[in-house]
Amino acid sequence: MIYLNGQFLPLADARISPLDRGFLFGDGVYEFIPVYHGKAFLLIEHLQRLTRSLEAINMKDVLTAKQWADIIHTLCAQDPAPAQGIYLQITRGAGPNRQHAYGAQDLTPTVFAMAITLHLLSDMERKTGLSAITTPDTRWENCYIKSINLLPNILAAQQAYTRDACEAILLDNGYVTEGSSSNVFIVKNNMLITAPKSQGILWGITREFILQLAQEKNITCLEKPISESDLQNSDEIWITSSGREIIPITKLNEKIIGTGIPGPIWQQVENHYQYSKEKFLS
Amino acid sequence: MIYLNGQFLPLADARISPLDRGFLFGDGVYEFIPVYHGKAFLLIEHLQRLTRSLEAINMKDVLTAKQWADIIHTLCAQDPAPAQGIYLQITRGAGPNRQHAYGAQDLTPTVFAMAITLHLLSDMERKTGLSAITTPDTRWENCYIKSINLLPNILAAQQAYTRDACEAILLDNGYVTEGSSSNVFIVKNNMLITAPKSQGILWGITREFILQLAQEKNITCLEKPISESDLQNSDEIWITSSGREIIPITKLNEKIIGTGIPGPIWQQVENHYQYSKEKFLS
Repeated sequence: MIYLNGQFLPLADARISPLDRGFLFGDGVYEFIPVYHGKAFLLIEHLQRLTRSLEAINMKDVLTAKQWADIIHTLCAQDPAPAQGIYLQITRGAGPNRQHAYGAQDLTPTVFAMAITLHLLSDMERKTGLSAITTPDTRWENCYIKSINLLPNILAAQQAYTRDACEAILLDNGYVTEGSSSNVFIVKNNMLITAPKSQGILWGITREFILQLAQEKNITCLEKPISESDLQNSDEIWITSSGREIIPITKLNEKIIGTGIPGPIWQQVENHYQYSKEKFLS
Repeated sequence: MIYLNGQFLPLADARISPLDRGFLFGDGVYEFIPVYHGKAFLLIEHLQRLTRSLEAINMKDVLTAKQWADIIHTLCAQDPAPAQGIYLQITRGAGPNRQHAYGAQDLTPTVFAMAITLHLLSDMERKTGLSAITTPDTRWENCYIKSINLLPNILAAQQAYTRDACEAILLDNGYVTEGSSSNVFIVKNNMLITAPKSQGILWGITREFILQLAQEKNITCLEKPISESDLQNSDEIWITSSGREIIPITKLNEKIIGTGIPGPIWQQVENHYQYSKEKFLS
């Protein structure tokens, strides 16, 4: 069962018009909110970012936080999985024809949401870490907008897939921006480093939360540019997102990173992340 | 009536799944083919570009030229308008879930097509010309792929709309790339100039055709970078596309270009364009 424009219905009954501007132009935005044991994690932060994304493409909020909470509750109640995520997408809606400018039309936005079961790190992956590759960042200038224009991200993610990696880390003129669907952290000399916020990267909710957790643990955090060589020579690499939490990367482009197993700073922040989740749930 | 996945059906009955990768990611490409009195113009060129776009996103052709010709014929036969266009879009199809990488899945592409009535230049517009604005080009690096990731194009076109202009001309680091849905030509000292082909612009079928027409009329044609000041100080500006043919721009950012009316080189190439169309139809 999914949510579409005010109704809960089976996916097979859900109809998007071919004239939906989401389908014709990618004219819409999305969010992905982790839900643990039925409780949405960092919901307000996600909804605030949704508002910012909508504003950036000249759209307004369509539902209140209470309405979203109710939708999330209904969708997640179907499945007892301890870790789920809510994917939600809002497009500008279907116009009477296909024209780039929406002009002065008062279109009704399309609102879609569905629950997805999360597959978090396995015990084996916690021991070995995962692989990533690097690839050029070909995306547009406004990746801080969480838009559904994701073709470059897809092509990068597919490259990772074909090379048995879990993520493609994007390099813009030799500097790390982020992953195809994650933010990137490195550890060097016990300092935690991530690229500074800019219009060119998504302002990850999990990224922000991790910076806060690390500070609580007195880990030095720097938001500064990470060069390709910084990345290759780092002691630890993590990729982070709301759907995958904190993934330790132990191989980059088939080469071992650090000691080749998830590092101590990852372990420390990961423990604190899980502890904070437990506290949130209790 | 529209075409969707092998069937002709009323738009209201056409259903796209919310899991269609076109809707979730903009994972697809499109073409727009002008059809005059039922005959598709430069069809082979458009289908060749479609193949190139599909290849660039790791997809294959889904229909033969003959199949496309039949679809175009059926869709256009509904409406006696002398000038129509066929919009066609192919997406990677709907997967079982939402994951960036499509992996090794053998998805069935979604194929959508519809006829659109063209509104070509009115007699008045031929006398006065139209207005355009300039705005920064924020798009990704591979605009030669005619993909449906069009959010930056939409935001630029909407800016043009709000300023009573028919097009937004995009500037990348001070140089003209193209319009939000057109290529751009200028005339300076009787020479016709357009930006060279690169990965950053669409390789317009109409752009190519116009270069050929101008050469037939012994007009000097240059494919070279056009700076913002070249644009502002040009004698003529045109925007060109398959759906709008050749539009003379006589105001840029509210300032008059050239003599303020469509120029003599535009008139010459426009006449030859219409003559070539007539010849094609006869």
